[in-house]
Amino acid sequence: MTESLWSDHVTVADASAVTVALTDAVLDRLLAAPQGLEARVYEAMRYSALAPGKRLRPLLVMAGSRLFGVARVSALQVAAAIEMVHAYSLIHDDLPAMDNSDLRRGRPTCHKQFDDATAVLAGDGLLTMAFQVLSDPDTHGDPAVRCELVAALAAAAGGAGMVGGQMIDLLAEHMPLDIGAVTRLQRMKTGALIAFSCEAGAILAKAPAEPRLALRGYAHDLGLAFQIADDLLDAEGSAEETGKPVGADAAAGKATFVSILGAARARAQAVRLVDHAVAHLDLFAQRAELLRQVARFVVSRKT
Amino acid sequence: MTESLWSDHVTVADASAVTVALTDAVLDRLLAAPQGLEARVYEAMRYSALAPGKRLRPLLVMAGSRLFGVARVSALQVAAAIEMVHAYSLIHDDLPAMDNSDLRRGRPTCHKQFDDATAVLAGDGLLTMAFQVLSDPDTHGDPAVRCELVAALAAAAGGAGMVGGQMIDLLAEHMPLDIGAVTRLQRMKTGALIAFSCEAGAILAKAPAEPRLALRGYAHDLGLAFQIADDLLDAEGSAEETGKPVGADAAAGKATFVSILGAARARAQAVRLVDHAVAHLDLFAQRAELLRQVARFVVSRKT
Repeated sequence: MTESLWSDHVTVADASAVTVALTDAVLDRLLAAPQGLEARVYEAMRYSALAPGKRLRPLLVMAGSRLFGVARVSALQVAAAIEMVHAYSLIHDDLPAMDNSDLRRGRPTCHKQFDDATAVLAGDGLLTMAFQVLSDPDTHGDPAVRCELVAALAAAAGGAGMVGGQMIDLLAEHMPLDIGAVTRLQRMKTGALIAFSCEAGAILAKAPAEPRLALRGYAHDLGLAFQIADDLLDAEGSAEETGKPVGADAAAGKATFVSILGAARARAQAVRLVDHAVAHLDLFAQRAELLRQVARFVVSRKT
Repeated sequence: MTESLWSDHVTVADASAVTVALTDAVLDRLLAAPQGLEARVYEAMRYSALAPGKRLRPLLVMAGSRLFGVARVSALQVAAAIEMVHAYSLIHDDLPAMDNSDLRRGRPTCHKQFDDATAVLAGDGLLTMAFQVLSDPDTHGDPAVRCELVAALAAAAGGAGMVGGQMIDLLAEHMPLDIGAVTRLQRMKTGALIAFSCEAGAILAKAPAEPRLALRGYAHDLGLAFQIADDLLDAEGSAEETGKPVGADAAAGKATFVSILGAARARAQAVRLVDHAVAHLDLFAQRAELLRQVARFVVSRKT
């Protein structure tokens, strides 16, 4: 990470643009389609993983990795693996059996562009490949580090993380959740993978406990702020801006931070959470400026 | 593996019964449901992974591991991880979007017992947990071995293995496949995971190339023999015996070994493949007797 763009004074817009380009180049390489008939599932994997997006999780990986001087190639492998898991979760969540969404990132969802069966398989393939990437010596020379990455991703993505959170989210359509239950749901569904994104650099650098705990605190607050911003966009944004249908939560009768707190209190809470998130970064001094900017960007974004 | 049941003279029936009991005990422990609302997805994961079954892949892991004196606890962790991946693949393959099957292992399929969304998530959760188990220090003390297991499972389960094979299988409903294409499809869809099951013991023992290649040859032939036997059961068996609907391949117009070769030639081919499989095991002498018996069992089974 020696480029000037990764200097202490880089703007979040510039860092984001660089991250998108670098991550997508790695994804393009890792998801190269083979010659056989199975190419179709790779096309679907590519369609979703390389769809236009913010690449927020890769940006967090890169911003967290620069704190410790992690090699760019290592950080990018992890960034690509996490983006694969994110893309898989969107594909499966959008399925008719789940949220039944037609639009994602401004384009037809994977099952609309291909078909339901191919979408199920594309999600399965992306999830599987994420673990393959993390276990690859290209990601890190030390197998203990690679194992820790695999274990941390599995914990974030599995029944105690994303999968469990999505299960609760589906049940929430049929039962009222209070603010504590919604908070737990979102910590599992989106917070766990965001937290892994923030901590990946520390794992790659074999960093000691203190900076790891600081990053965990940052990620904890950032994840909730991110979700509140997402709920606000669903309640107040437009499909043109967000690239996906809006108003879906309210239509489904789902409890969200906005439905429980109201928009004004939810927005104030998001701002407060970002302040808390940033406060965890003091020990990194100037080196964490990008992470601070990312946190502020998360609650001001329009997409 | 010091029990008498793992002696050189154990019968496949006894070894199978012990493997079922031991594997299911590990699965029961690993899949313990938490207290929260997400318990529902764990119930679905347990329903499928602990459904009555032959546990053929765990049996191959155990039989392969005893060649090298691998610690039983290590072999069982890998056996449980592979069975999770097998169960996930059945759940997703049975979905309405895929094969739309109502019956599996003599019981309602996962999406029939729960619902489509829960079944998608249960499959996702099992796949994710398999990698978590392999990356766990309980599986092996050496992180390099754990990484190799993760990489090998991902290769067997992903786009170049199971996921890619299932993609081709879906496309095969709409196009005629010749014997070469069907062979490649089945090597990917079922052969790759069977091969990993056979090789896992060698990975756990850090065995040299020669025994690994022998096991790979065995697994290669066994996997095809297994699939031909499966096709014969689908063409000639009953739902009572197999615990799943029969005749589905013919009804879907899918090319199988039986539809291309005819039942008699397919059966002869399976027997020939078993002979080839067994011939790869000579260097293990008497220690491989269980693997030899498993191969013969695979083509004589009625379920």
